[in-house]
Amino acid sequence: MSASEIRPLRVALLGCGTVGGAVLRLISEQAHDLTARIGRPVEVAGIAVRRPAHHPDVPQHLLTTDAHALVTRDDVDLVVEVIGGIEPARTLILAAFEAGKSVVSANKALLADDGVALHAAAAKSGVDLYYEAAVAGAIPLLRPLRESLAGDQLRRVVGIVNGTTNYILSRMAETGAGFAEALAEATDLGYAEADPTADVDGFDAAAKAAILASLAFHTPVTAADVHREGISSVSATDVARAAEIGCTVKLLAICERVPNGDGDSVAVRVHPAMIPTAHPLASVGGAFNAVFVEAEAAGQLMFYGQGAGGEPTASAVLGDLVAVARNRLAGAAGQGPSGYADLAVRPMAETPTRYHVSLDVADKPGVLATVAHAFAEHGVSISTVRQNGRGDAATLVIVTHSAPDASLSATIAALRDMPAVRGVTSVLRVEGLS
Amino acid sequence: MSASEIRPLRVALLGCGTVGGAVLRLISEQAHDLTARIGRPVEVAGIAVRRPAHHPDVPQHLLTTDAHALVTRDDVDLVVEVIGGIEPARTLILAAFEAGKSVVSANKALLADDGVALHAAAAKSGVDLYYEAAVAGAIPLLRPLRESLAGDQLRRVVGIVNGTTNYILSRMAETGAGFAEALAEATDLGYAEADPTADVDGFDAAAKAAILASLAFHTPVTAADVHREGISSVSATDVARAAEIGCTVKLLAICERVPNGDGDSVAVRVHPAMIPTAHPLASVGGAFNAVFVEAEAAGQLMFYGQGAGGEPTASAVLGDLVAVARNRLAGAAGQGPSGYADLAVRPMAETPTRYHVSLDVADKPGVLATVAHAFAEHGVSISTVRQNGRGDAATLVIVTHSAPDASLSATIAALRDMPAVRGVTSVLRVEGLS
Repeated sequence: MSASEIRPLRVALLGCGTVGGAVLRLISEQAHDLTARIGRPVEVAGIAVRRPAHHPDVPQHLLTTDAHALVTRDDVDLVVEVIGGIEPARTLILAAFEAGKSVVSANKALLADDGVALHAAAAKSGVDLYYEAAVAGAIPLLRPLRESLAGDQLRRVVGIVNGTTNYILSRMAETGAGFAEALAEATDLGYAEADPTADVDGFDAAAKAAILASLAFHTPVTAADVHREGISSVSATDVARAAEIGCTVKLLAICERVPNGDGDSVAVRVHPAMIPTAHPLASVGGAFNAVFVEAEAAGQLMFYGQGAGGEPTASAVLGDLVAVARNRLAGAAGQGPSGYADLAVRPMAETPTRYHVSLDVADKPGVLATVAHAFAEHGVSISTVRQNGRGDAATLVIVTHSAPDASLSATIAALRDMPAVRGVTSVLRVEGLS
Repeated sequence: MSASEIRPLRVALLGCGTVGGAVLRLISEQAHDLTARIGRPVEVAGIAVRRPAHHPDVPQHLLTTDAHALVTRDDVDLVVEVIGGIEPARTLILAAFEAGKSVVSANKALLADDGVALHAAAAKSGVDLYYEAAVAGAIPLLRPLRESLAGDQLRRVVGIVNGTTNYILSRMAETGAGFAEALAEATDLGYAEADPTADVDGFDAAAKAAILASLAFHTPVTAADVHREGISSVSATDVARAAEIGCTVKLLAICERVPNGDGDSVAVRVHPAMIPTAHPLASVGGAFNAVFVEAEAAGQLMFYGQGAGGEPTASAVLGDLVAVARNRLAGAAGQGPSGYADLAVRPMAETPTRYHVSLDVADKPGVLATVAHAFAEHGVSISTVRQNGRGDAATLVIVTHSAPDASLSATIAALRDMPAVRGVTSVLRVEGLS
């Protein structure tokens, strides 16, 4: 065996926070197994960080602030990018490709923003870009979508892919607390960041939805294509109303193939919704993630596990690292995702959804007829109505059938203007009802 | 583009029952997508069946009774084996390898029996052997274990991998019926075969457990290594007792890495067990399958979906078909599973388990002490005891801590011989209790 055959595969690590630190530790702890599984030892060639002084626990000779020099070094074979954010991650990944190095990334924002260009650059250089860790942490999801289901036709992918919002909504359901109170608790416990915008307003989930939809439907989808609503307007009333109809409120990332006369389209959206408590996603509590998949032949599948955290995310990074290392030794890059189907992305206004609406109305004859008329006028058909009288006032709780989202929101606007309606106390979409 | 570049990839289909028929239909229905995903059209070159007259609905010119001639034909590129059973499947697969053709199989019995030799033969010929469909039907499981978790260390894989027994146990819990009654219902509804032995006695689950353990622990495990107990001795009393302690009875396939002073070993077993109703596996009802995985870094994962049926199984077969087709076009076989760890398989007698025991005893002072002494004598520590008096008799319900299975079964034997014990009314292992 020549010296070059036993030379270890050398990895450049970009970023050494929670995930990077866990990657570093696992590479060292599992050295024996990684060598056996790859067929060659793996070693860390260098670690790029902004402030070396903040990393007293890692071998100091590996630290560098010059990430660009590190990824292009001749003795580096593979790059692991766990910096996050758009820049400098994008530039560094492209530089790695140019230098012939495969990249494993956990960067959902970048992949959701610019996945097509990055994949094209990887393909041009004949190297790999893998990113299982970018969606739902440790849960094997992208590889099953890309490979295991490659012979099937996907209909829907519905996921709870953000642990922070799932924790907040779980606590609201358990304690009856409002959003602000549950968020404060999540922040205290470290489940929400000091600036919770990315989680609470759905940006994180929207990036993941874009990645999932791209793979599921062989269609380029970016975060900008995703209709996004966060959970800050979910009220304790919404959560209570959900419980009354046997539902629970979850922030869902929903990727659907919508059949169309002149060719299917895809609809991708992130918003809070009521789902029946019997739905497999309803019992996914706290910081866990789960993704529910419906395919023509496979039927219903669910993938469940830890969606964040250093160790779980590092597990997904290392799985990809083994794959790209094997590909490198085999001398061939793996097949990237395909965008051949290139389906149109359907605007939210035209996407079929269902609403749950709760109204305070005057309890007098004809109110239900007036309200029902408003729905009918907008072409929205009603599935169920429940009327609870109380003195001179009453509550109407209405669940609609499926209709274009714009028709539903126009109906709500009309209801708000109606003299017979004293208040629209809760509006939330409903998913998974038969 | 030369003619050879656009020649379709040609598939030999061995077997055309429920799964084979679905594979045939999907290849035709999804021709456009398969072509795009593989980069070359796929077409069926021939279908080997025993009785062509039984298949009036498939193109008659494709049918042949000479499976061996079909798999070795020069114009065949890939082989899909959905005959099941050991022979002639094994001989045909080996002939396909010799002729340079990759094989996709759904044959759990064969893989569990002879996986090592088959993989060696595939590797020698530089071709692929994929079999995602062999375990848990449509659920992407083997690829995640082999690839996604390749950078992690697996601790346990616990699955509900047989739909027939899960249906029977679910019905027993719902209706209070005994095993025989629930089996009769399952047979009437077509959920159990006329000869239900393979399902009911755990042979099917044991084959799947062997395949899962081999992949999870990088160690060759065959069906003969798996401790196997079926569900025919599960009584209505067992199911009722389980409910009393907040548990449900499931037939579990359990693959564990057991830490040892002088090197870890693996324990692989299939038996009915009580699990807490809050455990994610407890709510897997009817004919569904689910597999729960615990890994060092990834933590807890669960995979859920349809474990059987023509369409779901065909989905898994087609996913593999796309993978082996791509590999063939790339000119390189994928990496087979590795057995490098080669851990010892621990006998059931030495495997740590926990028991739930229900005893009818005389309600007089000192009985509990006598019974507790029998446990202590065998080195078994008791976790909880519940005593219910009723006249001159009483019931003792005992849950043990973990102990070697032989110590537990010796304790039960001693209890049966004890004058103070009128009857051992229920004995079942317990899993997933903290």
